[in-house]
Amino acid sequence: MTHFDIAVIGAGSGNFLMNRSLSDQQFAVIEEDRFGGTCLNVGCIPTKMFVHAAEVAAQVRDAARFGVDATVDQVRWTDIRDRVFGRIDPNSASAHQHRENGENTTVFTGHATFTGDHSLSVTTAGGSEEVIADRIVVAAGARPTVPAEIAQVPHHTSDTIMRIDALPRSLTILGGGVVGTEFAHIFSGLGVEVRIVNRGTSMLRKIDTEICDRFTALAREQWDCHLGQGVARAETTDVGVSLVLADGTRVESEMLLVATGRVPNADRLGLENTGIELHDDGRIHVDEFGRTTADDVWALGDISSAHQLKHIANHEARTIAHNLAHPEDLQAFDHRFVPAGIFTNPQIATVGLTEDEARRAGHRITVSSRAYGDTAYGWALEDTTGICKVVADQETGLILGTHILGPDASTLIQPAIQAMSFGLTAREMARGQYWIHPAMTEVLENALLGLGR
Amino acid sequence: MTHFDIAVIGAGSGNFLMNRSLSDQQFAVIEEDRFGGTCLNVGCIPTKMFVHAAEVAAQVRDAARFGVDATVDQVRWTDIRDRVFGRIDPNSASAHQHRENGENTTVFTGHATFTGDHSLSVTTAGGSEEVIADRIVVAAGARPTVPAEIAQVPHHTSDTIMRIDALPRSLTILGGGVVGTEFAHIFSGLGVEVRIVNRGTSMLRKIDTEICDRFTALAREQWDCHLGQGVARAETTDVGVSLVLADGTRVESEMLLVATGRVPNADRLGLENTGIELHDDGRIHVDEFGRTTADDVWALGDISSAHQLKHIANHEARTIAHNLAHPEDLQAFDHRFVPAGIFTNPQIATVGLTEDEARRAGHRITVSSRAYGDTAYGWALEDTTGICKVVADQETGLILGTHILGPDASTLIQPAIQAMSFGLTAREMARGQYWIHPAMTEVLENALLGLGR
Repeated sequence: MTHFDIAVIGAGSGNFLMNRSLSDQQFAVIEEDRFGGTCLNVGCIPTKMFVHAAEVAAQVRDAARFGVDATVDQVRWTDIRDRVFGRIDPNSASAHQHRENGENTTVFTGHATFTGDHSLSVTTAGGSEEVIADRIVVAAGARPTVPAEIAQVPHHTSDTIMRIDALPRSLTILGGGVVGTEFAHIFSGLGVEVRIVNRGTSMLRKIDTEICDRFTALAREQWDCHLGQGVARAETTDVGVSLVLADGTRVESEMLLVATGRVPNADRLGLENTGIELHDDGRIHVDEFGRTTADDVWALGDISSAHQLKHIANHEARTIAHNLAHPEDLQAFDHRFVPAGIFTNPQIATVGLTEDEARRAGHRITVSSRAYGDTAYGWALEDTTGICKVVADQETGLILGTHILGPDASTLIQPAIQAMSFGLTAREMARGQYWIHPAMTEVLENALLGLGR
Repeated sequence: MTHFDIAVIGAGSGNFLMNRSLSDQQFAVIEEDRFGGTCLNVGCIPTKMFVHAAEVAAQVRDAARFGVDATVDQVRWTDIRDRVFGRIDPNSASAHQHRENGENTTVFTGHATFTGDHSLSVTTAGGSEEVIADRIVVAAGARPTVPAEIAQVPHHTSDTIMRIDALPRSLTILGGGVVGTEFAHIFSGLGVEVRIVNRGTSMLRKIDTEICDRFTALAREQWDCHLGQGVARAETTDVGVSLVLADGTRVESEMLLVATGRVPNADRLGLENTGIELHDDGRIHVDEFGRTTADDVWALGDISSAHQLKHIANHEARTIAHNLAHPEDLQAFDHRFVPAGIFTNPQIATVGLTEDEARRAGHRITVSSRAYGDTAYGWALEDTTGICKVVADQETGLILGTHILGPDASTLIQPAIQAMSFGLTAREMARGQYWIHPAMTEVLENALLGLGR
């Protein structure tokens, strides 16, 4: 049994807690997998590296539209994979090593189970160790779910598909959310025939309806989409895997990727032995300061947050680090204006309320959408589908939401995030600064100028 | 002789004066060339369309680095050219037509010469017409200069080179400024051997020294650069044109592009017949409201501005339109935080003071630079050269300048322009909003976080 000041379960964003203001604390860092968590190892970062390779290949195929005839001679999948993980894996290993060598950190490689509010049993390769800590931070993340009717056929999840040894000729993706649409973009960009099966009638159903409808139409153009139907059963076939849909349609591919959602890992931590309460959806309940319902037990990131986003987890880690160091001066999470990027094709970025949400919240709103194609840089891109939409409150002039579909959406949206976060009105924002002509930012400027007053 | 309320010389940004608040005024619009001015016809917009085509071709050639083997089979120059001008020319024509049909606008197609402070002689195809106006706005722009030693050999300027009938095998560009480096990017991207001759030892010498040095090194890698020497003479050769430099070096190409600078068109307007005074560099002198030294004569854009930038000219046009409509409530130009984008390779964007300028201005500064390659999205791009640099005042925490070299610089810089324009400190900006992970914007976030306090 070893006693620590602070035990951290999960070395994803949890690994950012050990900053200068807590350097006097002895930390146990308990991680059963790789350091860096979902984001670094199986999420944000490697997917974006694959996305860019896919976009390079797609750009080659699309080059003729710009007067440049070009051919993809070969996609070297294993080279792409090894380039990505040749960068990721050492990075993860060095983060691990850094903690192993840390003066105030002890790393436990294994699975943690609570045996009480401040005691953990860690199952390691060498057996079991008991860790006692005055304060515990739970940052154990989430994992992909696989529906029961799929579990029996060969399938991948986002945890495994990036490390496959060869590209399949065809890939069925079950799920039309963020993960499904990003992988659809990756694999179709790299030349794989992609089929999507999604229970809902639209893709990315949580985003603004106008963007959602437009994206769903574009998804149908680029992928073989089967929307609005559940899977009745799954079969292994000579080709690979066949999903039989409710209406009898068979969707068959060499490979199957299940992207139907993620569940918090809270069910695997023995929380029944603690005072830590859960939400109905399995997330750990935390207050605005990151405190669980057990004294001196905190939680952050995908295991407790409604937003499964790395920038949220990082913010929560910074906030909890502060709160651990300054118990007399607790800071609250700031979850007011949470942006998200979806690196599918086209790229999407969104922040704040959708048009429908703004109406439902009782705002008298003004809405303005502008096409990329109506700005000079959109001409250069020959863009025909991009759109920037701003929803504002007509009384205050404040921006309630911004929703962008098109190239570089995740970069373009930042000034809107900034305006919302600092209370700048749409009009001030549009006219109180210069917008470089002819940069792509003009689509946001124009959308702002289009708002009613 | 016809009398008007307002005469506008130049239908570039000048064409934006006739807005709603001036709808009771009778306008003469005098344009000797195409509507839309430099930006639409021979500047910002077509160059960006060529730039993107060049980047598509360059991306194909660079694709192997991402595990995608690809080949450029053919660059269809005339198709690119005709796509660009097939969009530009009708746009210019329709802007012209719109004014021809305007109830309160009369278009004169010809060259205007002042015969007095409020009288103009317009030389048209049909002869000469006299235009009298109570108020006159001079928005006649600028034109490329060609040094005397070059004038005798065949050469292009930015006015003509985009409409050539075939790509040369090789192109010498005289001048290492914005125009020269954008065309170097365009033509080398499209497969032309590019040589640059520049009197200065560095390219883009007006930008921040760190960015300038980095760009100059990258220019040397991608183009055949002859820096730090003037041209002794120019000769026509069997190949095309040869520039003989001061040290005797001969730089020979099939085609020559002269990009040595632009001069305001103020010397062609008969200003000696008016009370309009000029700066030493030939620009029309205006006060902060856009007024020249002659009563009720105004000027805007490249003919008077120290910034030859379309977004400045547009701002000045909006301001003067207001001032014409509201003489009792004059608004001043806001030239505090003027950004600029340079769409060369890599792209560059800059706003505010350079590090040297900030020091010379007496600020106690803190400076932070971050490499694109040190952020997750930079990994995806496999970027090895991009950099984001922020210069801030250590006492106030305000951002004094931001300088970015790398992909999408002109979009990435917008939040910094916004922060500077609205007086947000670097620290507030970095931590008071979310930055999507892993978007390219994180390079700016990281640069901000790197500033000393």
